[in-house]
Amino acid sequence: MSAPADTGGGLARFSINQETVRQLSLPDLAAACTELGIGGVGLWRDPVRAYGVAATARLVRDAGLTVTSLCRGGFLTATDPAERTRALDDNRAAVDEAAGVGTDTLVLVSGGLPPGDRDLSGARERIADALAELAPYAAERGVRLAIEPLHPMFASDRCVVSTLGQALDLAERFPADQVGVVVDTYHVWWDDRAPAQVARAGGDGRIAAFQLADWCTPLPAGVLLGRGLPGDGSVDFRVWRNLVEAAGYRGWTEVEIFNEELWARDGREALAETVERYRAHVL
Amino acid sequence: MSAPADTGGGLARFSINQETVRQLSLPDLAAACTELGIGGVGLWRDPVRAYGVAATARLVRDAGLTVTSLCRGGFLTATDPAERTRALDDNRAAVDEAAGVGTDTLVLVSGGLPPGDRDLSGARERIADALAELAPYAAERGVRLAIEPLHPMFASDRCVVSTLGQALDLAERFPADQVGVVVDTYHVWWDDRAPAQVARAGGDGRIAAFQLADWCTPLPAGVLLGRGLPGDGSVDFRVWRNLVEAAGYRGWTEVEIFNEELWARDGREALAETVERYRAHVL
Repeated sequence: MSAPADTGGGLARFSINQETVRQLSLPDLAAACTELGIGGVGLWRDPVRAYGVAATARLVRDAGLTVTSLCRGGFLTATDPAERTRALDDNRAAVDEAAGVGTDTLVLVSGGLPPGDRDLSGARERIADALAELAPYAAERGVRLAIEPLHPMFASDRCVVSTLGQALDLAERFPADQVGVVVDTYHVWWDDRAPAQVARAGGDGRIAAFQLADWCTPLPAGVLLGRGLPGDGSVDFRVWRNLVEAAGYRGWTEVEIFNEELWARDGREALAETVERYRAHVL
Repeated sequence: MSAPADTGGGLARFSINQETVRQLSLPDLAAACTELGIGGVGLWRDPVRAYGVAATARLVRDAGLTVTSLCRGGFLTATDPAERTRALDDNRAAVDEAAGVGTDTLVLVSGGLPPGDRDLSGARERIADALAELAPYAAERGVRLAIEPLHPMFASDRCVVSTLGQALDLAERFPADQVGVVVDTYHVWWDDRAPAQVARAGGDGRIAAFQLADWCTPLPAGVLLGRGLPGDGSVDFRVWRNLVEAAGYRGWTEVEIFNEELWARDGREALAETVERYRAHVL
């Protein structure tokens, strides 16, 4: 992770994850970032491929933006050999795209249980096997794999890695410069053991990304799009910022929110409010 | 917890939580239990009070049923003094009702964060303070308080106690015959640390109840009513049954499911299928 420069206005470490303002095209996002003094963007594979990897790299370079992460690889829990081969191939492509847009961080959402499968620890072991194949490939291309624990409500269908502790148990089987973890407030805020795990991750230099979203209820059907802007929910962001900083993290703080109300608004206005919320609730 | 008798048919330890078949009136539930050879029922305060505590006690005694638990007390996290006093009064009433219907187990759902509050550990401390007031009152009436950890997706609005480990950290401040914990598969199935916590709870005689529901996705809006019958989701019930038995638990297994499709069906038919699922996926 390249360290962010202090550009003033309190946004030195602020990065906007593209999905937060998905209504903005890549060129509009780049322009809005310049206008608002934002130095970092987290990108997603689909819009990057639609715009073109090389074109995206040019666009962000010309705008002076740092790509703080690419979302996402992962889904490494298949038992079917053909599906597993496809997943590994797709993750190598994700690594290539990460290197292509110039980021050193590929976020991994590990995958859920295969249909009819009830063995969480077996699925976690298959993730370790896949990391053993992917981590050296990524390292050769200057990309670190970042295991993101997802909230336990996603354990069956999206990510069997539910806590920072589990993510570190996996990551620590590999060199710290090859496999790190993501600390996302939305996923770990409830966990009384997470603060100690942040320290564990930081001591080893494994915090690859720090992401923010607020926890809001009631959750919508499917629970994917319930994340809120800082200040709308139950997360104490300063506590988490202090934890990662105390653990030695000096990288970017990426705001990543999936929220249909936010997506329905004018993209620049939504981005400006995200910045304001960051200033009010995180700094 | 009075130990269940072996009545044959594999249902020796089977208890039906009333809410699973809430479409059945208390007399219809008692009759259906007799018909199906079910020996245990978990009751809820609202229907018990509507029918009358003494009348409920007579009904279940005449039907030869054991009341395996009363749901529920709790909601002990208020900061407002008047609200806190009301909550403690309500919990004393719940203890009285538990004693009145003849159960030794009052399930506690601890409560979420007060509006605007973001301090989970402070809320957990207020629960400990409330238990210190309530546990002796309950013990004098032959009732044990059973702290139920709820899935982390309920941490903000319903229960700040999210893991079996946290529940035991609270329970162990009190004598084991005064405060125990509930092991509910729906809430703990995802947690790789839960098996060790089941052993910890069992070694100390603190497993006050064992409840079953399956984890099914996609979750519905509000996420309260997404629980499934055994076999419909991701939980390996035999693993959990073996864990509580290995920990020394010899009490009832209470099936507690909140599911609108199940509630829309004929109550006796829904109960009969619940029994069949128990035989197929738990025994």
